[in-house]
Amino acid sequence: MELNDLANSTGEWLRGSGPQADIVISSRIRLARNLADFPFMTRCSDQERMQIEKQMRECISRFNCGVELLYINLEQLDEVDRQFLVERHLISHELAEGRGARAVALDPGETFSIMINEEDHLRIQAIQSGLSLQSVWEKINRLDDLIESHVTYAFHDKLGYLTACPTNVGTGMRVSVMVHLPALVLTRQIEKVFRSLQKIGLAVRGLYGEGSQGMGDFYQISNQVTLGRSEAELIKQVGDIVPVVIDYERQARQFLMKEGPQMLHDQVSRAYGILRTAQTISSEETMHLLSRVRMGVNLGLLPDIDIPIINELFLRTQPAHLQKLAGASLNSADRNVERARYLRRCLNREAGEKKK
Amino acid sequence: MELNDLANSTGEWLRGSGPQADIVISSRIRLARNLADFPFMTRCSDQERMQIEKQMRECISRFNCGVELLYINLEQLDEVDRQFLVERHLISHELAEGRGARAVALDPGETFSIMINEEDHLRIQAIQSGLSLQSVWEKINRLDDLIESHVTYAFHDKLGYLTACPTNVGTGMRVSVMVHLPALVLTRQIEKVFRSLQKIGLAVRGLYGEGSQGMGDFYQISNQVTLGRSEAELIKQVGDIVPVVIDYERQARQFLMKEGPQMLHDQVSRAYGILRTAQTISSEETMHLLSRVRMGVNLGLLPDIDIPIINELFLRTQPAHLQKLAGASLNSADRNVERARYLRRCLNREAGEKKK
Repeated sequence: MELNDLANSTGEWLRGSGPQADIVISSRIRLARNLADFPFMTRCSDQERMQIEKQMRECISRFNCGVELLYINLEQLDEVDRQFLVERHLISHELAEGRGARAVALDPGETFSIMINEEDHLRIQAIQSGLSLQSVWEKINRLDDLIESHVTYAFHDKLGYLTACPTNVGTGMRVSVMVHLPALVLTRQIEKVFRSLQKIGLAVRGLYGEGSQGMGDFYQISNQVTLGRSEAELIKQVGDIVPVVIDYERQARQFLMKEGPQMLHDQVSRAYGILRTAQTISSEETMHLLSRVRMGVNLGLLPDIDIPIINELFLRTQPAHLQKLAGASLNSADRNVERARYLRRCLNREAGEKKK
Repeated sequence: MELNDLANSTGEWLRGSGPQADIVISSRIRLARNLADFPFMTRCSDQERMQIEKQMRECISRFNCGVELLYINLEQLDEVDRQFLVERHLISHELAEGRGARAVALDPGETFSIMINEEDHLRIQAIQSGLSLQSVWEKINRLDDLIESHVTYAFHDKLGYLTACPTNVGTGMRVSVMVHLPALVLTRQIEKVFRSLQKIGLAVRGLYGEGSQGMGDFYQISNQVTLGRSEAELIKQVGDIVPVVIDYERQARQFLMKEGPQMLHDQVSRAYGILRTAQTISSEETMHLLSRVRMGVNLGLLPDIDIPIINELFLRTQPAHLQKLAGASLNSADRNVERARYLRRCLNREAGEKKK
């Protein structure tokens, strides 16, 4: 398996098959880990970075996890390929934009990835469709144990796992759930929900972390604190609150369906119409319209199309994905034209097939 | 033939078959005439109005013009039916909203109509597709002679035909050409063109006369003055200037195609997409989007659809037409829903058939 094969496949987490998948896109847990034998990244020499990368590469090549892993050296990757991995949530923006020896290992189903030389020596993440924190936890816990059987982590008896940034000390864990909340946005309740979440120590960020606020009405709800809590407590905290948010979103959808069904149907239907006919379209407008369409499909207003197709389009209309699919480097204006062409092709074919 | 039969037919002038029909919708001439034996309308008693209506009804029933005419007594018509005739340009707004005995006679092809008891005793109009002023003139001239063989017009040897309003004295003729100028609107040149036309004594009005400025980028260019000019001079004045305006519009379209073909195609294509998917849509937005689509078809950007269909939709999505087609009285919100339904049905069927 190679990096280019990913462009035509879909990660398990995007298949819309997990629990509450109409509102919860994915559940994700990441662990920050450091090797005891090396200084933290900010104090590492180039030489030490290379040693860490080499040690982890050899360690991962000896893994036995049932599938062949894809190991990608990020130093040798061009910008589009790095951005492509960011868009798929396989690596962080920081790892993509970093310097020196760094890499990522991942499984073909994209259910987990191991970043090497990010802010910490290791950032391990597991991701799964729908609200499935417990099974994600079981997966990442096994993976963490597997890695630990080959290396020695920086660990303090009282503080727990030691990390480059003090905010991650303790479990080194971030539990995050990506939710799609278009009705709370439309009914202007989203800010109120966010303020409530922040009060109980949860963070809310956009689709691609900080600075990507609310693209396509997607939000990531995650824990702020990792120190002084057990892994089980953190999972419970996020896992308990997400169903409450889901319930708010469902109530907002029912409100919209009851108060202005025609208006809602109109907005959803026009969004679908524009996506099927635009000749040039920005990434931002695409996300906005796909979000409307996604809600419409979930409310039974658009029988022509299925959720997995929409989920995929969110990903495949991103700048790097478009360029990989077109097999060419495209400037912003050309990407807008290619994006429109791709949307027309996918959605018109889809509508045609469903009608047969 | 009855009034309700008109709802499912299309007047000849909307068929888009005449010269320059991509830009010129129709050529129209109307003559203002009064009967010598009666005072002008403003001085008429109710009794005299009834006498005029009766005399003209009997006169028209004796006409021999090859087809059976439809004679409609407007006093007995409800508001929707009167508005329906206004939307088809068969009667004026003034005749629809007037009071007392009044009527209209028309041929099944809607190539002419004779209004009785409008501002003048008689308003005769002939209308034809495309830029065809000469043949419209020949038609209305024959019709005028035919009527005059039955009645005595108020005529002054020096002033010409006498009319209720001094601005119509002389020929009593208004020559008007309805043009579709979306590219001049998009390139913001339309005001400049209008100022030039006004300087040489021509009037520019919207689709339904004064107060309907620019709906759907349609404009009527007509003569201001009727006194002191012969009929031939008036026809020549309008007939000479319209090709210049057509040329401006063609240049503006070529400019748009050259400078921003993608942008133009995008606007046209999205307009078509919205018309095919909206669930509720106002008359104003419909006109605006149909105008875009009409230009797109003429520029070869939308192979799915033909001009006559678009021309018809401009008419059939008007409030009274919608209610006639739906067979029910509808308020504004319900009309918006019905309009969207009608557009979806027509345009999706049309696109499907052309693809076969």
